[in-house]
Amino acid sequence: MTQIIRTSADLRDRVAAWKRSGILVGVVPTMGALHDGHMSLVREARKQSDRVIVTIFVNPMQFNNASDLDKYPRDEAHDLAMLEAEGVDVLFAPGVNEVYPDGFATKVSVSGISEPLEGAFRPGHFDGVATVVSKLFGMTQAGRAFFGEKDWQQLQVVRRLVEDLNIPIRIIGCPTIREPDGLAMSSRNVRLSEAERAQAPALHRIMTAAAEQIRAGAPIETALEQAKAEILAAGFHDIEYLEVRSVEGLRPMETFSEPGRMLVAAYLGDVRLIDNIAV
Amino acid sequence: MTQIIRTSADLRDRVAAWKRSGILVGVVPTMGALHDGHMSLVREARKQSDRVIVTIFVNPMQFNNASDLDKYPRDEAHDLAMLEAEGVDVLFAPGVNEVYPDGFATKVSVSGISEPLEGAFRPGHFDGVATVVSKLFGMTQAGRAFFGEKDWQQLQVVRRLVEDLNIPIRIIGCPTIREPDGLAMSSRNVRLSEAERAQAPALHRIMTAAAEQIRAGAPIETALEQAKAEILAAGFHDIEYLEVRSVEGLRPMETFSEPGRMLVAAYLGDVRLIDNIAV
Repeated sequence: MTQIIRTSADLRDRVAAWKRSGILVGVVPTMGALHDGHMSLVREARKQSDRVIVTIFVNPMQFNNASDLDKYPRDEAHDLAMLEAEGVDVLFAPGVNEVYPDGFATKVSVSGISEPLEGAFRPGHFDGVATVVSKLFGMTQAGRAFFGEKDWQQLQVVRRLVEDLNIPIRIIGCPTIREPDGLAMSSRNVRLSEAERAQAPALHRIMTAAAEQIRAGAPIETALEQAKAEILAAGFHDIEYLEVRSVEGLRPMETFSEPGRMLVAAYLGDVRLIDNIAV
Repeated sequence: MTQIIRTSADLRDRVAAWKRSGILVGVVPTMGALHDGHMSLVREARKQSDRVIVTIFVNPMQFNNASDLDKYPRDEAHDLAMLEAEGVDVLFAPGVNEVYPDGFATKVSVSGISEPLEGAFRPGHFDGVATVVSKLFGMTQAGRAFFGEKDWQQLQVVRRLVEDLNIPIRIIGCPTIREPDGLAMSSRNVRLSEAERAQAPALHRIMTAAAEQIRAGAPIETALEQAKAEILAAGFHDIEYLEVRSVEGLRPMETFSEPGRMLVAAYLGDVRLIDNIAV
């Protein structure tokens, strides 16, 4: 039976009892609209923790675009059923006023790693992520937190933040879960039309081919230019970025040398998709 | 016997053992150069906690003025002796590279309450305070933290930050400790010349008289103008601010209505003194 908790005071009471018994709490922060990608995080949390809290909060502070916030899919009843089936102990689903009450005035920001890629195209996004994640870590007092590699840059920002603020929590990154045709699972996929859904897997297919070329010695710039042309030809538009960067610091990589990460953001219709793979 | 700890890793091990036994840890964050004001915080921490950690770290991030940072008094041997005498369990005294290692990139900032008064005259000061305090709370995992009312605005900023980031710690404010002549104890007082030390108590004496006038019905602005003239006549210069504000939100107060706080910053020679009292 998954207990639903709505306030940080109730959550504190719940967690305090666990902490007194030396129980290790794992947290999976989400924005709801759960899919198998989230469930893989939940299963990992179950393996590595005594109790699992899943948080669902569509965080206005991390949306730079009001329409994206409005359109973000929400279905708590469906989410709850999925969490029940996985034996999650607590669903923490606070309202906006619970997370950001009147007078709220604090911001956590991470420079450097948060600035390129998503940071360049979504001003303020990572301030919102860093702030809400700090809050969720404080509220849950979890010892472990599970994040998907799907949001690769977010994972690096969260690791940086936890190390910098000495938050007593271990961050576990989990591999991206994909549909059989290669499309990375994302809550935004439900907003794709049938035709767009059929086009979407091209993104991962083209990136995989480009990564192979780069590993085989092709110049990064040439491989990426070709990949961009193919992505546009496959029906995407407005490729915000398609880059190869260093795995952890996300430093620009002009010639391939160390293990890298290829990251992309592009639109299909009015849906913004992101993905990333190893190079 | 006070144990000296220099690294956050060693501190985490020390604290982890306490936490497993359900021991309540109190922390007193300081910048060293300890005096009886700090000792009153330590004594309160001893009363309200099972174990007491005092931190000593002259935080470069909160100094907007390099010369003020250089001149800040440091005497660890003397500080340690005072802490031993009070039965403090741990002195946590990390180096700058331990607190801000290479790659450090995170900032905690509090808007609103941090902006007037000290915030207006010391740009970046409260970002530095908020960031280092967040780190010290993470490192010590203390359940209670003790701060002096001497730094009234800082106390409000820390309370705001802890509430906003849901940090599981209780903030205890402790009254300002004064010399017999009324001068608020401060690590910077040792930098006053003999003549300046004799002039310094005028600040508190003049503020106290002004507060009495205001409580008796004098217009705030008139009382403060007169007090400023008296402070300058007493040998101070560059009064950065002398204001009456609301106790908690530090909102400007033009006519006296609710419990207020009178706050001042002024120079005596090259020493910047601050103080505050109830109105």
